[in-house]
This record gives sequence, structure tokens and C-alpha cells, in this order.
Amino acid sequence: MGFNYLSNTEIEKALISYLAFIRNQTFKLKTEKIKTASAKDRFTASAVYAEISSPHYQSSAMDGIAVLASKTFGATETTPVELKLNSGFVIIDTGDPVNSPFDSVIMIEDVVKIDPETVRIFSSAVPFQNIRQIGEDIARGEMILPSNTRITPFHQAALLSAGVTEVDVYKKIKAGIIPTGDEIVSPETDPKEGEIIEANSSIFAGMLEDFYCDTEVYPITKDNLQMIKGTLKQAVAECDIVLLNAGSSAGRDDYASTAINELGAVLFHGISIKPGKPAILGAIEGKPVIGIPGYPVSGVVVINEIVKPVIEEWYRSPVSPGITVKGTLSKKIVSSLKYREYIRVRAGFINDKIYLTPLQRSAGIITSLTKADGILEINENSEGLSAGTEADVKLLRPLPDIKNTLLITGSHDPLIDEAADFMRKKHYRTFISSVHVGSLSGIIALKNGETHITGIHLLDEDDGTYNTGWIKKYIPGKKIILIKAFKRAQGLIVKKGNPLNIKGIESLINPGVRYVNRQRGAGTRILFDYLLKKKNINAGSVYGYQREEFTHLSAAVQVAMDKADAGLGIYSAAKLYGLDFIPLIEEEYDFAINYDFSENTLFKNFIEITGSQEFRTRLSGLGGYNFYDKQEFIIID
Amino acid sequence: MGFNYLSNTEIEKALISYLAFIRNQTFKLKTEKIKTASAKDRFTASAVYAEISSPHYQSSAMDGIAVLASKTFGATETTPVELKLNSGFVIIDTGDPVNSPFDSVIMIEDVVKIDPETVRIFSSAVPFQNIRQIGEDIARGEMILPSNTRITPFHQAALLSAGVTEVDVYKKIKAGIIPTGDEIVSPETDPKEGEIIEANSSIFAGMLEDFYCDTEVYPITKDNLQMIKGTLKQAVAECDIVLLNAGSSAGRDDYASTAINELGAVLFHGISIKPGKPAILGAIEGKPVIGIPGYPVSGVVVINEIVKPVIEEWYRSPVSPGITVKGTLSKKIVSSLKYREYIRVRAGFINDKIYLTPLQRSAGIITSLTKADGILEINENSEGLSAGTEADVKLLRPLPDIKNTLLITGSHDPLIDEAADFMRKKHYRTFISSVHVGSLSGIIALKNGETHITGIHLLDEDDGTYNTGWIKKYIPGKKIILIKAFKRAQGLIVKKGNPLNIKGIESLINPGVRYVNRQRGAGTRILFDYLLKKKNINAGSVYGYQREEFTHLSAAVQVAMDKADAGLGIYSAAKLYGLDFIPLIEEEYDFAINYDFSENTLFKNFIEITGSQEFRTRLSGLGGYNFYDKQEFIIID
Repeated sequence: MGFNYLSNTEIEKALISYLAFIRNQTFKLKTEKIKTASAKDRFTASAVYAEISSPHYQSSAMDGIAVLASKTFGATETTPVELKLNSGFVIIDTGDPVNSPFDSVIMIEDVVKIDPETVRIFSSAVPFQNIRQIGEDIARGEMILPSNTRITPFHQAALLSAGVTEVDVYKKIKAGIIPTGDEIVSPETDPKEGEIIEANSSIFAGMLEDFYCDTEVYPITKDNLQMIKGTLKQAVAECDIVLLNAGSSAGRDDYASTAINELGAVLFHGISIKPGKPAILGAIEGKPVIGIPGYPVSGVVVINEIVKPVIEEWYRSPVSPGITVKGTLSKKIVSSLKYREYIRVRAGFINDKIYLTPLQRSAGIITSLTKADGILEINENSEGLSAGTEADVKLLRPLPDIKNTLLITGSHDPLIDEAADFMRKKHYRTFISSVHVGSLSGIIALKNGETHITGIHLLDEDDGTYNTGWIKKYIPGKKIILIKAFKRAQGLIVKKGNPLNIKGIESLINPGVRYVNRQRGAGTRILFDYLLKKKNINAGSVYGYQREEFTHLSAAVQVAMDKADAGLGIYSAAKLYGLDFIPLIEEEYDFAINYDFSENTLFKNFIEITGSQEFRTRLSGLGGYNFYDKQEFIIID
Repeated sequence: MGFNYLSNTEIEKALISYLAFIRNQTFKLKTEKIKTASAKDRFTASAVYAEISSPHYQSSAMDGIAVLASKTFGATETTPVELKLNSGFVIIDTGDPVNSPFDSVIMIEDVVKIDPETVRIFSSAVPFQNIRQIGEDIARGEMILPSNTRITPFHQAALLSAGVTEVDVYKKIKAGIIPTGDEIVSPETDPKEGEIIEANSSIFAGMLEDFYCDTEVYPITKDNLQMIKGTLKQAVAECDIVLLNAGSSAGRDDYASTAINELGAVLFHGISIKPGKPAILGAIEGKPVIGIPGYPVSGVVVINEIVKPVIEEWYRSPVSPGITVKGTLSKKIVSSLKYREYIRVRAGFINDKIYLTPLQRSAGIITSLTKADGILEINENSEGLSAGTEADVKLLRPLPDIKNTLLITGSHDPLIDEAADFMRKKHYRTFISSVHVGSLSGIIALKNGETHITGIHLLDEDDGTYNTGWIKKYIPGKKIILIKAFKRAQGLIVKKGNPLNIKGIESLINPGVRYVNRQRGAGTRILFDYLLKKKNINAGSVYGYQREEFTHLSAAVQVAMDKADAGLGIYSAAKLYGLDFIPLIEEEYDFAINYDFSENTLFKNFIEITGSQEFRTRLSGLGGYNFYDKQEFIIID
């Protein structure tokens, strides 16, 4: 089997012709009659009409007496009318039936009792007053639900009240998911080098369940055409739609397209979306079979943009339509003219505006999904969006939760994650979301009003203080509050036992020492450059200087896994992996906010949490932290 | 048992003290360890940290050769470096592990093959270039999820990739629902007079499932203290929270409060919300037991405002936070100072603004929930909101669906419901929503820009034409398009066989003839007044003139159920119930829009549907309709 060259069909064109193709197949979604009581989230296959009226009998809307209105005509204060029990009136409670000959109810307060058999009234009753009419809510024969409508609990109650105990619905769509690949292993196994844990099926199945489908995940199938065809045949026989995961690009071992083609037809292979381009749109026995690319984010895009419309075509209804809001881009996004791109973004709700920060774009980064608040689309034929642009974003998290989220942009310290956890425990209606861009970008974000708070640790070389000088320099003329509470040990993280006998910065130029650096703008990178300068060491002579990691943990993990021999970082990262640590400096890790933000509940909650003894105890457990006696709030003007 | 007088505690106060009370009980929600793969929509009971890094091995990000970067230093166009297979390089594919001594990957395009054992390169490799680092996505020990977080499919995949195959979550809350009442019967039975179909449990269970609870609906329990206590005891033993439905007000047979008090404690009985006031907040054996009022809308309010916060207190997370949007009130709403009121509203998305129309406020009207797009809150101490006010509304339907909904406000004709059904079938991404306020209010709504379209049938007494004159009079100087297509027979709907020998309008004053009228502003009411005037009949001499129904069907159903002898209405309503019909007039039922709206997709879809032969065939099946040869569009300036 040779290489296939993928086409690059525009998604709209591909979808229109694919949906039309699916519609014209012999396979149709079946319908079934089910109990109304268990019809939640099913889709009506035809309009539903009331079988009885609701209320189904005429009842009193008051406590009082039921009368025949015509017998009360002429009653006034001066000419009262007397009525006799049973022939002229009956006592009635709210909800009791009102029956012939009575057609009107008088409130008990307006009735004077003369004797046990006689009442007197002083104004005439209007026919049908104080009566809850039959069909006041629903009239028999009235349409309660049109076709192709998702049944909610409210609908269920209306249907039951209208005597509709069974309802015609579409059979639930059954989606089969086939994970394939020689390198793919079950999450239950301990993965070896070169093996990838099968995590996609969880995402895909979960998404499809949210689209009101049943799902069946088939066992992992090897990269073997006959085996893939075998599983495909079984899945097509058992399901309404089949997703074949991975093997959809054009590499040597990519059998998805061939397998679908040999059992049915491939309509499109290669769609102009990014990520997600290698998607395959095919059909076997009239049922849609879709090749989903292997990277998790690519898969999510294809499920949302291609699989979901197929589900909607069958249920003939939108399913889980997401909320779209407008947000302002905090960074520019460069995009390809050839593709429609789907960018995961963090959303920060700041001063009633939503700011969007693009997350890592690599399709293999699953945390770009877990951290994302939404997805931003950039159309084909656009070179991208510049910072400050207002753009539509489809939310992945509930908007109220986003509004209740404290956004921390800046340097990474594990204490932020711990604070996020404390927030969930102490103030469960507010959240913390953090973006790790380094101290310098954190200051800029604060300056531009794109973050609520920033975490920074920047040494002023002139006077040895931390952060104040940098804020004055980068945010002149703005009132900032710097919150001082935490000190932490920075040093070289080296292997257990320090086999290369690294003694300090000067040892990093020894032959055979592999260094792992942090990204530009990171406080730790700036510190490293400062330490190099002090020792008069040229960055070029440090092997691995250009190798960038974004967090202390990801730098330390390179040392732990023997992919580096040293990295500059905090003690807690070394301790986590049981590595040795050569302390170099104790620095101050501070938080900064705009003065205006100090009265905000999100901030107050954050200060309460991070100021607590319990929080300090947790950090002491992580190791390497020291504390101010109490939080200090420094106003920088 | 005597009457209890309910208190009227403010909901915020009641909730704060109730939640504190619950928190201090000995009963706590248990946690359990479950498979990550089945943890969707469960809530983490503690922070979750990565057990392995992802990727868990260093791999190539390119197809190419793996080299040791230091051996390539100095390579240039003029001084290439030659490397030997195995000792100097290995061939590597994307995703393959990169192992010691190699620490860098050169793209295959940049490699010149000299012989099977030798390659030549022309620029030096930067250490660790083109390598996907260990932990690029997730570093071992990194926090993946904080406590009290609902697990999404994305989270599941991140957890699995991080080697977390089991996760600590709260046990799913089990909610017991006990329907009570002598008059309550199962939906499966044919209800007799005075019996009410048990439909509330479906609503409550469905809502609680959407709050991530398991539910158990207990059999209907009679209004008997001992029986209610028996079921309560069982439910409290089996569930974490129990909802006792109805019997919560202060009437003779309302045992809910007594039963809870005798088995545990009632903290509050009577909350200042409307509907929902008779709610009971109590506890038995440390578990919350909540008395839910009997009317469905009251129940929904109490579930949302009281039960949901309890669920959130236990999961320590918001559950299903609804979207709130701003909308403009099209009608004034009068509200009580004593209560926080929850008003169901229709939302119409018109010219990028959301217009809100209050629906029927009676708590017994279940269709006020099925028709509602959202719920608007009016606080205590407010007398209400005037028309034109901007107000927050919590949406019950997805906003994108609301935006894709054609709003028809005006006269009721069953053809609108049929059009709604056709819309779902022909254009499943667009919806029709209709509000029945009568022709005259429909014209006003169109004038005020509060509806997309109105359906009207108003006779101009001067020239016998329909609708044009009224539009000119009520919407002067605005460009309107009137769409003519449908004619329908109006007449007197009378009982089968016409036992009272009604011959026409003049027979309505005969003794013993009970008339059912339509609401003020309805075209049919205006027609009736016109017919009375022509015959010189005084409205006061028609028995039942003041009795108002809002639709043709609800008027006709009174005749069908022997609660009236005659009503003016359309033929199809008479036919539906097998009633006799005395035709009086053929009128024109037209639609009108603002001229600007004519290019809107919602309108085009509507015109396509209602202009189709298939639609006319359906109406012919309903009976009483006649048609213009084709739709006529009349521009009224």
C-alpha cells in the first residue's frame, strides 16, 4: 500500500455533500414507542397531540360554594338571594369538581350562613367565575410537541398530564468507536517506551453521549488491514455510525481509508481544518463511517465539526448547541490561509469584558482541552487575528463559572495549583485558572488588563529586592498592589546522588552536562541569565541552553528521566521526583493586582486562602517554601 | 391536626441557615474510588495528580535521523559532517522513542544519504531539537484536577494519559421523590373526575438527574400521616436527600410538615418565593428532607432555588449553572412586595435584541414551563417591572436555538402549530414559537418590534376586507408586508346533533344556552361583537359572554365536555371533537411582518413551508380551510 495524497476539501462543501449522501442511503434511523416517563432526552419522531385535556375536569379555583349563576342574578346588598343546600348550592374546596347544574363558585368569604341548610349572598355570580376550566392548560387534540424535539422533564410532565403515556421517538443512535494502532495500549497497562495510552475513546464516547447517543468502544485493533476490516464489519453491523480512530493520515501504516474503501466508499479524505485535516468521510452499508485522526484535539474537532452534524441530521435537531460569546484576544494568532483553524483559548472575565488567551496549539496536547474555556475558529483565507481583535468563541465551560474564575497569568509555581484546590474546597462557587507565561509576560498581562492577578519573582539586580522595580518600570503610573507572602528556594535540580558532581552554575559548562532551560520571559530564565552573567559564563557554552520547558515540574522531570543532568528550579520540584538540589538563592514569589481589583470577591477569597495557616502547612509539605509572618500589601503608585 | 400558619422567610436567609445546618449534621456524602473511564460527570473528592508524565517517553517530532547534537557542531554548507549508522545516527519516524546517546533529530529533508551506512549533514543540530519532550503535556506529580471538579470527557483523557486509571469521587447523590395525595393517580390510569395525574415526579427526577443525582421515585402515598411517615422513613434510609411532594401547604390534609417534624425537624415552613411559598426545609437523621409544593411550577422553583443549592453544597461545586441574558420586557409585570417572584417568559430574538413576553403565571399551568425560554426573577420589595425594562433572564433553552426561532405573536390558529411541526421536519435548525394574544395585541407587538411575525384575522366593517385597514390604522407610516394565503370557516361550534337547535347568533340568547367566549383582543371575539351588533343583540344577554378562552380548541373543548353549548370558532376545532358546526363567515387569516424582515432566513423558511402543497394538504385534513391560489405579498406603506 502506497502513500495516499490527501485532498483539502473545504469543510462546508464536504459536509453538504456528505449529509446529502447519508440522507440518500437506504439505512434510516428507526423509531420506537417508549414510555413517556423514560423519554427524557429522546427526540420525538412525530408531532405529539394531547389525548385528554388538562385539567380534565372543571374544578373550583377557590374554597366556597358552587352555584348556578343564573339563580343569583339580581342579588345585591339590599336584595340578597338565599340558596338552599344541594338544590341551590354545594360546599366546595379548591380543586373539587364543579358539576351540573352548578356553573359558578362564590368565595366562602362572600357567603353568609343562615342555617346549616341555607346561605345568603349579596351580589350576583358571573357565570363560570372562580372555575378552573377544562383544558385551561392543555386542550385535547392540541399539539404538545412538534416532531424532532428533544424531550425535557417539563415536556414529560406536560405529556403525562395530557394523557400521553407513550411517545414515538427515534431509536437512540448507537455509535461504535474503534481504536486502532500497534502503539496503542489500554490505560490499564503500564506503558512501555513507544507505547501510547488509549485515552481518545473516553473523549469521543463522552462527547457522543452528550449528543444523546449510546456508544460502544471496540477493543484496540492492530495496524493490519484485515483485522481493521474485521472490526469495522462487526461495528457497522452493530451500530448506526462508526468512528475509526487513527490510521487516517497518509503514512505507511494508515489503513483506515483503504479499509473503508474496500468495504464501502470513501467520499472525502482530507478536510481543510486544523487540527483534523486527515479526517475520512465514508460509508459502509449506508451507514456513516468516519476516520478520526489520532491526536486527541484533532479528534475533538472532527467530532464537533463532522460527526455532530451527522447526529443532528438523523435526530433532525440541533444537539448541545454551544454558547458563543465575544472576547478580546490578548495575543495575536497567526493562522494558515489553507485551513480553518480551531484554537483553544483560556477566557478571563475582567471588568465585564472577556479576554481570550490562546493555549498551546499542538494537537497532541490534551491539557490544551482540559484548560480551555472555549474554542475560537479562524476561517480559511485568514492570516490570523491581531492582539486586541474581538472574536467569537464557542464556550466549553459554563459562562457563569468563567465569570467566577480568578485568572492568574504569570510565573508558574505549584502553589497556584494548590490554591486552586483550596479555592474549590473553601469557596466552591469560585475557581482559579492559571496561565504559565513567565513573570515578564505576567506583568505585561496585568498592565494590559488581561489578567486579574499575576505571580512574579523578578530580582532587581541593583538593589537585590524583588518585583517592585520591575513593576515600576513596566507599569508606570498605574496603582498596583504587590502581595508579599512567599519565599522559595531556587537552585540546581540534579540527579539523585549528583553523579556528575555539579557544584553550581560554573559546573554547567563541564563536558557531558546536559542542561534544561526555561522559556524566555520566565523569572527562572532571567535568574539563570543573571547567574551566568555574574559568573561570566557565555550562554552558548551551556549544552541545552536553548531547550525550553514551561514549568518547574517539566524541567525537573527531564532530570528525573535522565534526559537532562541539571535544571534551575525550585526545591519542591526536586523533592517531588526525589532529586538532589543545590540551593543558590532564596527569592520572593509575589502576587500583583491592579488596585481596583482589591475589593473583588475573587481576590478576597484568594487572599483568605493563601493567607491561611492550613495553606502554609500544605506548602511546607511540598518543601522549599518560607513565609512572611503575615501577608504584606504594598501599594506601588 | 389544625391549620399551620406558614412563615414567610426570605429565601437567602433561609438558605444560609439551612445549608449551615446541613453542613453540621453527622451525615456526610461518602466518597469512592472508581475507574477513570467511567468517571464522566462525577465530582472529584480530592485533587488528582499525574502518576506518569505524558508523553512518558522522549520521542521524535519528525521523520528523520536521531543524532547526538554535540557530534554535529561545526557542520556548515562548506564543512559538512558525516555520520555513520548506529554509532552516529539512527533512522527515526515521528513518534519513535529517541534514546541515549542521541538527543536531537534532523529532518529527513536536511539529510543527504551517501551510502546505506553514511549520511552527510550541512548544519549543526541544536541539542534537543525536533524532540517531543517527556512531560510536554503533563509532568508526573502535576495537579491535573483540583478537588470538587466535575469530570468531563477531556479530563478523563488527561487522567488516563497521566496514568490515573482510578479516581476518588463523591458517591452520586441519591434523591428520593415521594409523591403524595389522595387525588393523585398514576399516569397509567384513566383519571376520573377529581383525580390528578402524577406528572411532577418526572420533572423533579429529570431535573435532579441533570444535577448529577440518581433518583428513586416512591409509590404514590395517600394523605395519611402514618403512611407518609412510613414512606419517609424508608426513603431517608435509602437516599441522601428526600423530596416530599405536596401536602406542604397548610390545608386540612397537609401532613408533610407534621411527618417531617415527628421524624426529625422542620427548620422552615414558608419561604417568600412565588410560586413555591409552602416549601418545607427540614431534616431527618441528618439528611435534608424538603417539602415540595404540589403545583408543578412551584415545584420547579423550589427544586432550582432550594434543592439545587443543597446538591451544590454536597458536591461542593456549581451544577448546571444556567446562562443569564438581558432582555427587554414587552409587557409590564406586576409583582408582590412580599415575594420574590419567578416569571416564566418567552424570549424572541429580534434585531439583535431579546424581547421577553411573560407567560401565564398560574403555578398549575405546566405549559408555562414547556413554552418558556427562560425565568425572570423579581425581587421582594419590588412592585414589578414596566414594559420596556431591561431585565436578566435565566435561560431554559439553549441561546442558539432561541436565536434560530421565529416568534409568532397574535391570533391562534392550529395551522401555526402545524407550521412549527413542518419547520422541525424541513429546516431542523430553525424553530417556531407562538404566543396567543389575539389579533389586536399581535398588531401592537409587530408595531413595537416585539415579534417577528403576527397572525391576524380582522374584518374591516366598512369594506369587508381583512387586516389591511387595521394595519394601516394601528401601524401608520411603517412598511409592512401582509401575506395572504389562508381562508377559514368561522361559525358556531355546538354539540353533536345540535340538541338546543341553535341556528345562529340569535339563538344564543335562548334560555339555557351557555356560551363560551374568547379573550378580549382576539379576532374571534371582535368578530363575535360585530355579529352581535349586526343582529342588535346586547352582549349582557348572552349567558357566558364574560367567560374567556384563549384558543379555538380550548373554547371547543368546553362544548365537547358539556360545559358550554356554543362557542364561536373555526371549523377544524369543531371537527377535532366531533361537534356540529354552523358556518357564519369565511375569513382571511393572514400573516404580517415588518418589511425589513423579509430577507431573514426564519421568514423565508416559514414562507416556503406554509406555501407548500404538502402543508395545504395537511390543513385540508384538519378541515375548514380554503386557500389563495398562491401566496400574495401585499406591501402596506
